[in-house]
Amino acid sequence: MKLCTLDRGGRDGRLAVVSRDLTICQAVSDIAPTLQSALDDWSGCEPRLREVSAALENAHARHAEPFEPRACLAPLPRAFQWADCSAYLSHVLLARRARGVPAPEDLESVPLIYQGGSDDMLPATAEIPADPCWGADFEAELAVITGDVPAATGEAEAAAHIRLLTLVNDVSLRALVPAELARGFGFYQSKPASSFAPVAVTTDELGSAWQGCRVHLEMRVDLNGRPFGRVAAGRTMHFSFAGLIAHAARTRRLAAGSIIGSGTVSEHQADLVSSLVENGGSGCCCLLERRLLETLDGGTARTPLLRPGDRVHIEMLDGDGASVFGAIDNRYVEPAVAPVNRGGDQAPR
Amino acid sequence: MKLCTLDRGGRDGRLAVVSRDLTICQAVSDIAPTLQSALDDWSGCEPRLREVSAALENAHARHAEPFEPRACLAPLPRAFQWADCSAYLSHVLLARRARGVPAPEDLESVPLIYQGGSDDMLPATAEIPADPCWGADFEAELAVITGDVPAATGEAEAAAHIRLLTLVNDVSLRALVPAELARGFGFYQSKPASSFAPVAVTTDELGSAWQGCRVHLEMRVDLNGRPFGRVAAGRTMHFSFAGLIAHAARTRRLAAGSIIGSGTVSEHQADLVSSLVENGGSGCCCLLERRLLETLDGGTARTPLLRPGDRVHIEMLDGDGASVFGAIDNRYVEPAVAPVNRGGDQAPR
Repeated sequence: MKLCTLDRGGRDGRLAVVSRDLTICQAVSDIAPTLQSALDDWSGCEPRLREVSAALENAHARHAEPFEPRACLAPLPRAFQWADCSAYLSHVLLARRARGVPAPEDLESVPLIYQGGSDDMLPATAEIPADPCWGADFEAELAVITGDVPAATGEAEAAAHIRLLTLVNDVSLRALVPAELARGFGFYQSKPASSFAPVAVTTDELGSAWQGCRVHLEMRVDLNGRPFGRVAAGRTMHFSFAGLIAHAARTRRLAAGSIIGSGTVSEHQADLVSSLVENGGSGCCCLLERRLLETLDGGTARTPLLRPGDRVHIEMLDGDGASVFGAIDNRYVEPAVAPVNRGGDQAPR
Repeated sequence: MKLCTLDRGGRDGRLAVVSRDLTICQAVSDIAPTLQSALDDWSGCEPRLREVSAALENAHARHAEPFEPRACLAPLPRAFQWADCSAYLSHVLLARRARGVPAPEDLESVPLIYQGGSDDMLPATAEIPADPCWGADFEAELAVITGDVPAATGEAEAAAHIRLLTLVNDVSLRALVPAELARGFGFYQSKPASSFAPVAVTTDELGSAWQGCRVHLEMRVDLNGRPFGRVAAGRTMHFSFAGLIAHAARTRRLAAGSIIGSGTVSEHQADLVSSLVENGGSGCCCLLERRLLETLDGGTARTPLLRPGDRVHIEMLDGDGASVFGAIDNRYVEPAVAPVNRGGDQAPR
């Protein structure tokens, strides 16, 4: 089953079921007005949503309309929980190397996690405001949306709480990261609103590509219309989504509609030349990794961070070459309002 | 105007207006079913809510009922944004000293902020699950609830976006903090669900105690029925709430219903003896500060962190000795389910 949130009817939009081939959809306000309300009562709503899904596949849906990704909000336009992890260790190793700080000693046994802000989840085709001074980057990730997860749920039980999967562009402001992390309290200003694929899908939509609570498909990233990353998202994922959920729920319950991210999809690259997509390599799912490989190769990063006008396209195709979640297609733009207090911050009293 | 959320009708409860003296309330589902829905359309709802408030004060409310704090959820039982700051510098200095790490150099010019999780905001009388191994602590704080705040809002404009004020017990698991912060991504497992006062109030309810976007009243904390902290919350607050909002909105807009916390209310204490409430001192608003003062005094912390059965009472009184927000009154209990993977975490694949 595939779901989207249509941009009609308020801040949370309106839930719709989408056909597998992403050509038609049907609003289902009679079942659940919003995706959050469906997640709040999943056992009550899921069978009825699946009936609509079956009707769409069999061309029996009576109120179907064309599916337009641009008419969608993020699946959860505002969410109650967004926690992002680092399940791809090669990204952690490269990112820490780029910042000049050591990787945690327990890197392989305990997932890194950070608490994200969830009040503003951007649509797939959102323009991303990015002051050139901020050093904007993209991060192509997978994410699960959960049901209610009891506190201290173990990894073995966690998979049963996965409701949906989707894609994220975890927008990152690289120029703000080092100072922010050095202050000790994690990301905040350096991780503004992120953009989500237009469609979220149940795991059965992936067929055999969903194994071991991992998505065994390729993350495809294009930068300004050219292939930038083609990275296998399954075998490279060190912690499974079940493991990430168990980690996130260790000291707290998670409410229905919690979004848990995989971190940047990433694969170990021996060197810059072999990593390039045009040379048959897998490339990268963020600029930071590419820039570090360039630095290691020749002393300087040649690929700039994002500038207004840059375009990032993130998508995942199934075995038949069909888009699973629809595409994230963000254009980076100048902030509408020039940021105030650019250097430091407001004066104290 | 004072508002609460009654524990009836689903996960988000039902909005009610509360009388100034906290004796009666009236559900206002005809105006807005939930506090979030009122915040989403504040200009439309506020005048009508104030009419109910006036009717309650004039004993003209036709559907008033007794106000029972135990019948309340948190004002926002689940929120879309919870960002907590450190506006009281003496708390930062003590906390960093306790962890043996230096305070940031720009401590006085840039607020510390961390992104909190907001999917599970506990009621004022919640039992707080706390494994004794986690070293649970309380932190008595003020928080504002905002309307929509545009990105890059300056401090001068930020005050206009404050809708409501309330109190928070920012539950902190001290034993998990050092390892978590050492990994570089901020708090997550060490900051589980927090508890909120039953009532949130508009700033005009504070009269002259609301000045400079600060609350010039005393934060009162009792531990197991004995006075533990009586700390002035106004003059000790280095950054105003307007400053904190501007900081939180520097690179992102904030959605209506965003909760921005002050951090632990704290006042510089010369030494342990002069800090004790029973000696006429102001005491502390968390155990961490008291324990550090004890360590500096005699080499060891004598006040233990919280154990099952401990009770924490947090309240603020106005100039007439009346409770402004109602009381937070948490009992700490053993977790219902023994945490799994206590030491490390789930095994990698």
